[in-house]
Amino acid sequence: MVPVATQASAKTLTSEMLAGTGTQVIIANTFHLHLKPGEAVVAKSRGLHKFMNWRRPIMTDSGGFQIFSLGFGRDLNVGKILKYFEGRPSANLKVAEGRQPNSIKILETGVFFKSPIDGREIFIGPRESIAIQEKLGADIMFAFDECTPPTATRAYIEASLARTHRWAQTSLNSRTGKQALFGIVQGSRFKPLRELSARLINRLGFDGFGIGGDLGSSKNSMQKILDWTLPLLDEAKPRHLLGIGSLEDIPRIIAAGIDTFDCTIPTHYARRGIAFTSAGRLNLASAIFLNDQKALDPRCQCPTCLGYRRTYISHLIRAREITGLVLLTQHNLFYFNQFVATLRERIKKGIL
Amino acid sequence: MVPVATQASAKTLTSEMLAGTGTQVIIANTFHLHLKPGEAVVAKSRGLHKFMNWRRPIMTDSGGFQIFSLGFGRDLNVGKILKYFEGRPSANLKVAEGRQPNSIKILETGVFFKSPIDGREIFIGPRESIAIQEKLGADIMFAFDECTPPTATRAYIEASLARTHRWAQTSLNSRTGKQALFGIVQGSRFKPLRELSARLINRLGFDGFGIGGDLGSSKNSMQKILDWTLPLLDEAKPRHLLGIGSLEDIPRIIAAGIDTFDCTIPTHYARRGIAFTSAGRLNLASAIFLNDQKALDPRCQCPTCLGYRRTYISHLIRAREITGLVLLTQHNLFYFNQFVATLRERIKKGIL
Repeated sequence: MVPVATQASAKTLTSEMLAGTGTQVIIANTFHLHLKPGEAVVAKSRGLHKFMNWRRPIMTDSGGFQIFSLGFGRDLNVGKILKYFEGRPSANLKVAEGRQPNSIKILETGVFFKSPIDGREIFIGPRESIAIQEKLGADIMFAFDECTPPTATRAYIEASLARTHRWAQTSLNSRTGKQALFGIVQGSRFKPLRELSARLINRLGFDGFGIGGDLGSSKNSMQKILDWTLPLLDEAKPRHLLGIGSLEDIPRIIAAGIDTFDCTIPTHYARRGIAFTSAGRLNLASAIFLNDQKALDPRCQCPTCLGYRRTYISHLIRAREITGLVLLTQHNLFYFNQFVATLRERIKKGIL
Repeated sequence: MVPVATQASAKTLTSEMLAGTGTQVIIANTFHLHLKPGEAVVAKSRGLHKFMNWRRPIMTDSGGFQIFSLGFGRDLNVGKILKYFEGRPSANLKVAEGRQPNSIKILETGVFFKSPIDGREIFIGPRESIAIQEKLGADIMFAFDECTPPTATRAYIEASLARTHRWAQTSLNSRTGKQALFGIVQGSRFKPLRELSARLINRLGFDGFGIGGDLGSSKNSMQKILDWTLPLLDEAKPRHLLGIGSLEDIPRIIAAGIDTFDCTIPTHYARRGIAFTSAGRLNLASAIFLNDQKALDPRCQCPTCLGYRRTYISHLIRAREITGLVLLTQHNLFYFNQFVATLRERIKKGIL
């Protein structure tokens, strides 16, 4: 489980606390760090490790996800996308070949973004992404790719995928140092496209693989996509699933052959007052917990559960104290790491 | 130096981190904890120590400061009060005998407050304050008092002081357990009233003393008030100065004979991006620090300065990451504690 440190911080925690959650690898965001503080600032600290005081491995994504999140993802809001999957698509959701999102512009050589900070134009293509990632100095970089929207037509995805494959080669050619570089398999919900992408990315000589993009509308379709893709990738190289990792997903994706995955769920939910426990999710903002003398999870050995009880954490969340978010983030990351550690043990014993 | 944990949390820090800053005692707020989560909730954890996982001493103030902050302090905003001290008083700032603030009502037996949360009426007098503080279970409680506004007339202060003295006796009479109880000396800027108050509070048999209220408009007047007051208090008992403690004040108030003092400066400024260092205050939001590879204070041995540099903390503050506030709070508290520890050493060596 790879916690997300978008802006070079696992939100609310110091790096010491993050290490204390059993975290082995983190993933930072190339696009956001390019904006703030800029890769030149990080390079002056000789990379992210020294910059943020984190001695364990670091990944940086390529910025490709922002083509979706600041592009079609912004145009087509989530509610509309859900309706689409319920079989009530509105015509203007269709993303067909040649169409561009409102706020960014996708070209053969890369993408013009508008800075969410000051609106200035930012161009990132595979060359730029790798140059930024090399300055950020992570152990594992990702190739620049387009993450396509779930409402894209097959024709759009075919064109995008061909471009993503050219970008993959350019990403590889742009690398100048010794950092590992993972290629990303795209192809959306179409079996032939996923197979094509897996075969091609596998051939290019990356150090490992990312499975990215739209994984379909159901758990079932995610499973199918992994089953189509993973057998075509060199078994000796690590496979990372990008941006997935609910507690329900984790056993399935590991069983399918995924080695690592990043997700914002433990940290994101912590900041909304939610704890993950062996008895399910707890919403600490609820007054029920004000008089609850148990640890968040009585079986958990994290610093939060060893020192604090639900009554106090519930008080902190209800009183809008930042310390409450810190304690919940610490617990949730520990809980997810422990959850995965247990699966690892089961794999070693041959029972998964 | 007593950090302020208004709502039973030194804002942004866990109790382990707070202990790591060298903090020996904290002060929590009776009024705010009465509102949230309520003393009954804290009592179910057998007091604040277990509730917040803090094994060192705890003080609770009496709620008397809120008579000012939610009363005249709210009516007379700070800008107006400053004009008053510049010799341009506006007539409606004068607080004369019999006048009541807009939002609370001060009676002989206590004060009707309006809850800042839901507007409901809350009555706290000396009996209620001690009952709440006993349930909160701090090591040191304070007697219920009125903190008078700086714009009060002598007649107002005389009437208030007589009431505060009656409340002091009632506070003492209301105590049922073994917690220490400190009496508070009031009397504003008037020498005869401060002396009267010190003599009377000294006689009542408290375990220690607080010096409270309006300490005048200048450093000089604070010094005078301490010089009038402290010689009249039993030297064998601890003296606490309420709500004062800039780095400039600290050597002066300690030299005057103050043993402990609480102040929000280190934590409050941290949350606004300010670090206190041996080279003065630094505003980490400034882009100057983005390329500064030094620790916040190169001479400081706190966990923040040992692990992180200005470049990273500046990035975190500019990127609005909570982790930045955590790191600054940790440093500022350590820095203040260290500052006071150095003064303590000098006192032991006889050079202060």
